[in-house]
Amino acid sequence: MDEHFDVVAFGAHPDDLEVAMGGTAAKLSDNGLTALFVDLSDGEPTRYAGRGARQAQADEAARSLGVKRLTLNFQDRLIADTLEARLTIARLIRIHRPRYVFTTKGSGIHPDHRAVTEIVTNGVFYARLPKWDEVKGAESALAGTEPHEIDRLFFARCRMEPAWPSFDFAVDISDWYERKRASIAPYASVFVGDQARLVERYAAEDQYYGRILGVGYAEPFQARGPLLVSDPTAFAKVPFG
Amino acid sequence: MDEHFDVVAFGAHPDDLEVAMGGTAAKLSDNGLTALFVDLSDGEPTRYAGRGARQAQADEAARSLGVKRLTLNFQDRLIADTLEARLTIARLIRIHRPRYVFTTKGSGIHPDHRAVTEIVTNGVFYARLPKWDEVKGAESALAGTEPHEIDRLFFARCRMEPAWPSFDFAVDISDWYERKRASIAPYASVFVGDQARLVERYAAEDQYYGRILGVGYAEPFQARGPLLVSDPTAFAKVPFG
Amino acid sequence: MDEHFDVVAFGAHPDDLEVAMGGTAAKLSDNGLTALFVDLSDGEPTRYAGRGARQAQADEAARSLGVKRLTLNFQDRLIADTLEARLTIARLIRIHRPRYVFTTKGSGIHPDHRAVTEIVTNGVFYARLPKWDEVKGAESALAGTEPHEIDRLFFARCRMEPAWPSFDFAVDISDWYERKRASIAPYASVFVGDQARLVERYAAEDQYYGRILGVGYAEPFQARGPLLVSDPTAFAKVPFG
Amino acid sequence: MDEHFDVVAFGAHPDDLEVAMGGTAAKLSDNGLTALFVDLSDGEPTRYAGRGARQAQADEAARSLGVKRLTLNFQDRLIADTLEARLTIARLIRIHRPRYVFTTKGSGIHPDHRAVTEIVTNGVFYARLPKWDEVKGAESALAGTEPHEIDRLFFARCRMEPAWPSFDFAVDISDWYERKRASIAPYASVFVGDQARLVERYAAEDQYYGRILGVGYAEPFQARGPLLVSDPTAFAKVPFG
Amino acid sequence: MDEHFDVVAFGAHPDDLEVAMGGTAAKLSDNGLTALFVDLSDGEPTRYAGRGARQAQADEAARSLGVKRLTLNFQDRLIADTLEARLTIARLIRIHRPRYVFTTKGSGIHPDHRAVTEIVTNGVFYARLPKWDEVKGAESALAGTEPHEIDRLFFARCRMEPAWPSFDFAVDISDWYERKRASIAPYASVFVGDQARLVERYAAEDQYYGRILGVGYAEPFQARGPLLVSDPTAFAKVPFG
Amino acid sequence: MDEHFDVVAFGAHPDDLEVAMGGTAAKLSDNGLTALFVDLSDGEPTRYAGRGARQAQADEAARSLGVKRLTLNFQDRLIADTLEARLTIARLIRIHRPRYVFTTKGSGIHPDHRAVTEIVTNGVFYARLPKWDEVKGAESALAGTEPHEIDRLFFARCRMEPAWPSFDFAVDISDWYERKRASIAPYASVFVGDQARLVERYAAEDQYYGRILGVGYAEPFQARGPLLVSDPTAFAKVPFG
Repeated sequence: MDEHFDVVAFGAHPDDLEVAMGGTAAKLSDNGLTALFVDLSDGEPTRYAGRGARQAQADEAARSLGVKRLTLNFQDRLIADTLEARLTIARLIRIHRPRYVFTTKGSGIHPDHRAVTEIVTNGVFYARLPKWDEVKGAESALAGTEPHEIDRLFFARCRMEPAWPSFDFAVDISDWYERKRASIAPYASVFVGDQARLVERYAAEDQYYGRILGVGYAEPFQARGPLLVSDPTAFAKVPFG
Repeated sequence: MDEHFDVVAFGAHPDDLEVAMGGTAAKLSDNGLTALFVDLSDGEPTRYAGRGARQAQADEAARSLGVKRLTLNFQDRLIADTLEARLTIARLIRIHRPRYVFTTKGSGIHPDHRAVTEIVTNGVFYARLPKWDEVKGAESALAGTEPHEIDRLFFARCRMEPAWPSFDFAVDISDWYERKRASIAPYASVFVGDQARLVERYAAEDQYYGRILGVGYAEPFQARGPLLVSDPTAFAKVPFG
Repeated sequence: MDEHFDVVAFGAHPDDLEVAMGGTAAKLSDNGLTALFVDLSDGEPTRYAGRGARQAQADEAARSLGVKRLTLNFQDRLIADTLEARLTIARLIRIHRPRYVFTTKGSGIHPDHRAVTEIVTNGVFYARLPKWDEVKGAESALAGTEPHEIDRLFFARCRMEPAWPSFDFAVDISDWYERKRASIAPYASVFVGDQARLVERYAAEDQYYGRILGVGYAEPFQARGPLLVSDPTAFAKVPFG
Repeated sequence: MDEHFDVVAFGAHPDDLEVAMGGTAAKLSDNGLTALFVDLSDGEPTRYAGRGARQAQADEAARSLGVKRLTLNFQDRLIADTLEARLTIARLIRIHRPRYVFTTKGSGIHPDHRAVTEIVTNGVFYARLPKWDEVKGAESALAGTEPHEIDRLFFARCRMEPAWPSFDFAVDISDWYERKRASIAPYASVFVGDQARLVERYAAEDQYYGRILGVGYAEPFQARGPLLVSDPTAFAKVPFG
Repeated sequence: MDEHFDVVAFGAHPDDLEVAMGGTAAKLSDNGLTALFVDLSDGEPTRYAGRGARQAQADEAARSLGVKRLTLNFQDRLIADTLEARLTIARLIRIHRPRYVFTTKGSGIHPDHRAVTEIVTNGVFYARLPKWDEVKGAESALAGTEPHEIDRLFFARCRMEPAWPSFDFAVDISDWYERKRASIAPYASVFVGDQARLVERYAAEDQYYGRILGVGYAEPFQARGPLLVSDPTAFAKVPFG
Repeated sequence: MDEHFDVVAFGAHPDDLEVAMGGTAAKLSDNGLTALFVDLSDGEPTRYAGRGARQAQADEAARSLGVKRLTLNFQDRLIADTLEARLTIARLIRIHRPRYVFTTKGSGIHPDHRAVTEIVTNGVFYARLPKWDEVKGAESALAGTEPHEIDRLFFARCRMEPAWPSFDFAVDISDWYERKRASIAPYASVFVGDQARLVERYAAEDQYYGRILGVGYAEPFQARGPLLVSDPTAFAKVPFG
């Protein structure tokens, strides 16, 4: 899978991206952008299912959103911002050459959720640097790839984590909300038992962000750098906006 | 109505207190505390009803929450932090002698919503000062009343206003949520037409605050001074808390 | 002048809007939007010129930006968030019915700079409310006008004031920067003597905002409500973005 | 020592917990809760004493507070958020099954003080996850223990570190302050020479937090998740509160 | 009293300046700077004394600090940011022509404490503007005075108010602390009864700020504009600084 | 090179210190303080030059600023907060025994830029601790050196990184700005091609910081601990300060 994508999104575990930005992904896909979801781990072991069930769920979820999916083999729970991890992300960015990179951001209730933000931020930076063959300890890591600089790195709110004090912008996903729910539904073995209430929580959050913006459902984002627009008419009307 | 109350809450307009802290009010009332709602204005004129309809709605709302209600005659839209307003609040505090005072807090989309926070904060302070008869310009304002110092001043989130970056504590109102809805329902002429979506928004917010705390519904609060507890077991378990 | 405008911007003094958002105004004008600059005061007295000179300067500045201009008669230095001021702004918004309203925002080195933010925020809210004829003390203020709800209220950085900790978005004005300078140039009697360095400061700020965003010149903005976009491709590439 | 405790507190070095929350620990103990202090290191080497003196001091301190104590063998100065450290904490939490976990929080003047916050936060999360035997690299770490989810994680202010901008709540320790001092006193070889002024500093801090809350002495805390209370009467009166 | 002063400090009530910055005032005075304390009100009525007692106390306090004192006739409790108040401060600044202006800053538990910050900030700005005779409504207010621009405006922490999240710099007052206490002592009728604990609180605060900076006692300050130094050796060594 | 220095500054790559604080370094040097620049890496590989060119550039830059220079052999791009790195910095601090230590601070666009802040902060702390020979894993690392406690640790703004929300103080470098430019000029092979605009950006930032402070050019700094001054006259006049 060496194809180029307009959008590459990185999550720690299958379902993280669906929950954090499934609606935006479906919308971008419908708008004609090509998108790839990359899970750093396969999410195993999982509380209420045997090994392997989650991968099939993830594939179904991706199909429903219109995105492709790739699963890396970092170990769930032990994801850390190592050189190897950074270079893995950098290699994928150089291969798939996206304009937009997304990942999730949270304060770190789950250590994987803090690690993924750091790894992707660092990987994005590594991807644009030349001459890796001269870097002791990383000589061959990016061999055969060319430097690539993305347009923008955006962070979706990792939902299991505490609410952000604020977000930089939100995307209206009202017309894609059913698609988002359809992409979460396959994870039957994840959101069951005492985890079932998580799905309710995520729905309440999507609805909350939507309602305060005067639409049905919305997903909030933060951006790595400041937001630059051609002109302020880029922003939609919101209640008391 | 000179009786003492455990709780006195001040809102700018009828329905502000119901929306911001109706569940907490009902809960405190059921717990045996006596509570008084004071609206600084009668909320007139109102978009979709003739003059007077709102007062009857407010009375019905108060009954459903188990609180008493008092309507002052400040003019809706023109509420401002004047000496007269401060002294009016101070007088009520001295008469009703509450331990807990509540009001709403918002960034000021509606100017009344910023004014009420300032007026009540200042009124609470005025209420504890002696010797008003010696203050030029306010000699008789508090005549016949005795200084009173409250225990705590809490701010409920004014819901039409933008979300707070954070709150100091929340109250679980799951078992009182229907009572809260029942107290908002009478305001039929307020939440109609293009304002109907506001009720949906408020419900989404109550649910959001509840879900992130692992309960059905919750109301968030800020406190004027720091929170002091006898010991930390005062705080309930919350998900990832 | 009862015409409708796409954009209405309010400043405390002639030159405030030019300095804070002259580039954006010229750009929006070139993009086909109609824009009106409203100065709350005539900026008199002014340190280095006789009465009246500033008005001619302001007119020339507006022409160079492609916007119309209106000067109100609030007294420079004494601008305050009064009922009269709020209603004056509300009336103008109801008459000109803009989708976008701008004003300046600063921490209040100059008291007029804090007042204008409050007045416009409150005036925008007043403009959307019906039934002013029933409001005691404001019965006739908005007579003959219809309620109007704007799309968005944006704040430009008031440049004489301390830097903001952050901004919500910036507009690339590189190709309009000469137009901006041309609109500041007429204020010869303002930016002279010990005030001449202010123009250098403003230029350094425009350049600074531009350079950190990878363009020539930019103007930063804050927004009253959260930013909602159709999708994140609304945001341009910035260095390390 | 496999017994269950209501409270388990983790500090980097012996004396960290006494200084940060000794009063609260004594109070909880007197209230009938069982508490365990866990030091990640033995605090050796120590500036003004030979090896071993500190352990005896720590034991005496624990006795005076009414808590039990356990010393782990991480190396003072080199404490880091490693997988091994996280799993060590997770194992202890699964064994002792506390409702409340405490640790210290500071900005990282001493690297151990930042590490302990991260390790305990991550360890608490690891403790609740099942199926560690399936996690490559950690298969046997938690063997023989059952998942445990705590009620709340609280952070006490690490006193050698800069002041927090704010705290979430404070505990009145006025009646336990002598007990707290008695628990710090045994560390004679730590707080001597140029370190003696630290004890004065800690006393000034306890007194400061107390005085601003209208009591004799208090200890401030932050909480991992938001604070949920049954009702706001949980909070004590404070001056101008 | 038309003399020039190096320092002019404005407080709402007699004793505010002593408590907030008495040590710094004494130090500056000993360093050879001339200083004037201006109280906006006479602090009457006062809880535990008859009218007039406070003025004598204030005079004694000023003498002990080596500063001169002026009492204005704004009414305690009713101080507000009016045009008259701003111009009064501007006139004093033009007459006494200080390089450094101080006032107190607090969040507004006492409304006078918020008002004084606003009035002085605005008065300082008014003082530098020319041509007041052309300003309608203020024509004669500053007649006979010349514009004056100060070097710096600093805010001392108003101690009855909640703690600041942070301060910009602190002044070591260890060797002047007894002088500070001596300046507070005369206010016997203020700090008596249930207000006696306030003096203890202020002492705890002075000690706290000192101890965290490695000295005996210190007073914290915020600055209106950013801090500019010739070089960083201006800053003293502090523990873990 | 065992000599003592008044100032030791640590940067990740040659040119980081010049860009962040070259003016301040030249000024301190001219004021008679001795200063050492330590680069953690040699900055290789570099995009537009062969290996080795950068070292010669760095030497020339140091000469032009009047500082000495030392290059360590950490690998550019892979700098991390390891025990070895911390001890390397601690050893240098013990050898050169500076009163003032500087390093750069940024949010971590480039991972080296976050790492250097952590390493130096930790190294500064390690330097003051005795008895390293008793620390398992670091027994010989600091052999032959004596503990050293610095006066202050300051952070210069890492310019490639996003702007800080605020700075603690700035240094006027107007008269040293040409010296700063002269120290950046040698890095011809770094600031070429698509990196040339970085130099323009840095110049725009220096000018921006200067202009908002009323001088030609300035460099902003943050401090590890709070700022303590003998008295507030340490601070220079700034516009609207």
